[in-house]
Amino acid sequence: MLGSTEEMVSFCFHRSRSLLDFKRLSFSRIHSFHPYTPLPSPPRLPFISPNRFTSSSPHLSMARSWNSPTPNGQINRNFSPAGAPEDRKSRVAVVGSGNWGSVAAKLIAHNALRLNSFHDEVRMWVLEEVLPTGEKLSEVINRTNENVKYLPGIKLGKNVIADPDLDHAVREANMLVFVTPHQFVEGICRRLVGKIRKDASAISLIKGMEVKKEDGPRIISTLITERLGVNCCVLMGANIANEIAIEMFSEATIGYRENKEIAHKWVQLFNAPYFMVSVVQDVEGVELCGTLKNVVALAAGFVDGLELGNNTKAAIMRIGLKEMNAFSKLLFPSVKDSTFFESCGVADVITTCLGGRNRKCAEAFARDGGKRSLDELEAEMLQGQKLQGVSTAKEVYEVLRYRGWLESFPLFSTVHEICTGRLPPSAIVEHVGRTPKIFPGGRL
Amino acid sequence: MLGSTEEMVSFCFHRSRSLLDFKRLSFSRIHSFHPYTPLPSPPRLPFISPNRFTSSSPHLSMARSWNSPTPNGQINRNFSPAGAPEDRKSRVAVVGSGNWGSVAAKLIAHNALRLNSFHDEVRMWVLEEVLPTGEKLSEVINRTNENVKYLPGIKLGKNVIADPDLDHAVREANMLVFVTPHQFVEGICRRLVGKIRKDASAISLIKGMEVKKEDGPRIISTLITERLGVNCCVLMGANIANEIAIEMFSEATIGYRENKEIAHKWVQLFNAPYFMVSVVQDVEGVELCGTLKNVVALAAGFVDGLELGNNTKAAIMRIGLKEMNAFSKLLFPSVKDSTFFESCGVADVITTCLGGRNRKCAEAFARDGGKRSLDELEAEMLQGQKLQGVSTAKEVYEVLRYRGWLESFPLFSTVHEICTGRLPPSAIVEHVGRTPKIFPGGRL
Repeated sequence: MLGSTEEMVSFCFHRSRSLLDFKRLSFSRIHSFHPYTPLPSPPRLPFISPNRFTSSSPHLSMARSWNSPTPNGQINRNFSPAGAPEDRKSRVAVVGSGNWGSVAAKLIAHNALRLNSFHDEVRMWVLEEVLPTGEKLSEVINRTNENVKYLPGIKLGKNVIADPDLDHAVREANMLVFVTPHQFVEGICRRLVGKIRKDASAISLIKGMEVKKEDGPRIISTLITERLGVNCCVLMGANIANEIAIEMFSEATIGYRENKEIAHKWVQLFNAPYFMVSVVQDVEGVELCGTLKNVVALAAGFVDGLELGNNTKAAIMRIGLKEMNAFSKLLFPSVKDSTFFESCGVADVITTCLGGRNRKCAEAFARDGGKRSLDELEAEMLQGQKLQGVSTAKEVYEVLRYRGWLESFPLFSTVHEICTGRLPPSAIVEHVGRTPKIFPGGRL
Repeated sequence: MLGSTEEMVSFCFHRSRSLLDFKRLSFSRIHSFHPYTPLPSPPRLPFISPNRFTSSSPHLSMARSWNSPTPNGQINRNFSPAGAPEDRKSRVAVVGSGNWGSVAAKLIAHNALRLNSFHDEVRMWVLEEVLPTGEKLSEVINRTNENVKYLPGIKLGKNVIADPDLDHAVREANMLVFVTPHQFVEGICRRLVGKIRKDASAISLIKGMEVKKEDGPRIISTLITERLGVNCCVLMGANIANEIAIEMFSEATIGYRENKEIAHKWVQLFNAPYFMVSVVQDVEGVELCGTLKNVVALAAGFVDGLELGNNTKAAIMRIGLKEMNAFSKLLFPSVKDSTFFESCGVADVITTCLGGRNRKCAEAFARDGGKRSLDELEAEMLQGQKLQGVSTAKEVYEVLRYRGWLESFPLFSTVHEICTGRLPPSAIVEHVGRTPKIFPGGRL
């Protein structure tokens, strides 16, 4: 089935005062969300009841723990499908504490507290800084339970412990969540060599890649695996952090390589009634979706700036999605088409091409006819944040040029050429189905 | 390859004054568009030159005719790959003359004039009406070369002949383009029985379907085939008519059943430098995309009206696309996943969920908390046009209920229940992953 999700998390969650009363971490808004029921696999299965997950699904066990108040109405926090004794409980550390890292910590903290197979405490490594008040960021987080700098106004959960000491933060953890800017990963991994538990696993929420012309891109999950010798999953999706922070409904996709069991543990940690996580066995596909979609967002921004209308924008987004797929599959033959129908694929392309800073700056660039550089607009509009799409487009272009694939990826290559000023923004439409520029007779 | 297009039209088109000078129907704006080059099929083919279509492709033959000025710089309009003598030329009639029908006539008229395998004249059946000036619409179209009522300001091409007599309009045609409101098709077909050429073929641009609970939906192309005994292709895509009318870049998908040759003739008739047409052997998939996307647009409109943000909207659009796919495949097992990556699939969902009247009215409905009915809003906002999504949602719901599939299609069924007022607009998110409403303990 198209975009079939290998596993759908089947939380059942409802408005129960007793549930609310006894939650130590209450959601600020409780919805009666029931996540997306797996569709039947046509045509052989005309109908599969959404109840088909009975006892075999680990997710339904979780659902039971959400929905199983004890006779006196309290949540039975000792209930655990795995019946994990204390020494077998998993311990989580979040490596990073920016905007998305803080939201991730909030999601994880709630689940760690709720599920008996995890230690309550979630360590969050904070790159220490002194706030204008003179206080240290980590101390304020631990006092107020808020990341006042990167996610103000949102309670993270009292079991989130900000820790400015990286080694200390990860020492006891066997589940490491990497969520830093991508240029810091290599350095952090070097610092962590020999410092982490032997049984540790990782997940990367980082969007970006390292490109070497000869080798193609090295995705972040591979970098983490190589440096630390750990299994590394990825989590990507249509995930604007601030919207998830206030618990607006969203989805995400976890990609794993081989170990399905650990992928399910990550699902348990991230899933929430307002954050529906699915898993697919396609780590490269999921991670490249998260990375490449920023290039498509620049293209969509150019279309917006040129006021070319919705047909054109939809066409450009579709062609972008297609190039994302083709590029990913050329580099990693194991990448699956169905991954592009998950949240990390089509949904993330949509979110990023509707909002997002890449789209926004590209729009301003095209509106201005390309007269002011993207660097200038970036500095003016993003207060120091960088446009990931611009560097990704450059990296992709290098790979395409090195391998002789430029002509087959007109959108990716044109985006880079527009960013560098070699082509005008209007080229995004004119070159989208590029043919050789020199026609018989030599006309352009 | 994901969303692979079986055939890509490889027009080469460039800014050549000589070309412009000798075009009898000049485009109002000429772009140097070069349509999307087919991507290599990874991983076995690391690179395929976009020039791989050499002599075998009928499209490249067309490309040659676009780009083959005679030595004195004139276009050789007598060049024809098929070398069609006069009696073998195809003759086109457009059945319908609304907004989209007029744009279709414009596209077709330009190509019919340009390509030697078609008769220049394109008949367009006009349901006659008297304009406020007292003139007949068909006469004004023939005098001004514009459909002043449904597509004012756009020259259709002097070779478009408006004909108020349906029988007469189709009499000599062997290529029939159906582009009327879907409720008129049955009646029109009845009138045409025995009146059309024996060798006629049809294409439907009509979005909609007929649903009988027991039999499931009967798509329009099947209805035309059954009534008239003709081959019937379909053309769908991210096609806001007014944007194509002013030649903003867009794409479309032609679906065919078996006859690839006739599909290519339709491509020749519709394709333009600003309107890139691909073909897939999946008539049901293409047609159901065009129909079902209106239900998803209502869902997207509810999300907009509730101001739930881009993550949520992207998630709802993705789930909608997935239900479109699953529903289509349940009814027609031959439907291909890759069709949903064509313009008729993901791109049309995007266009329709960004703009479009279904989205717009659904937004107003949700913003108002569902207090005013969709019928009321429709009457107020659409000046007599009907919301196709509302009736399609009802038809889909009937099929789902009859077959016991309601629980597996939470988005489709919830849209209908919101439209009828049985559920509030907020249910679009709350029920998106519906589970049985009655939990142990009887709580809702």
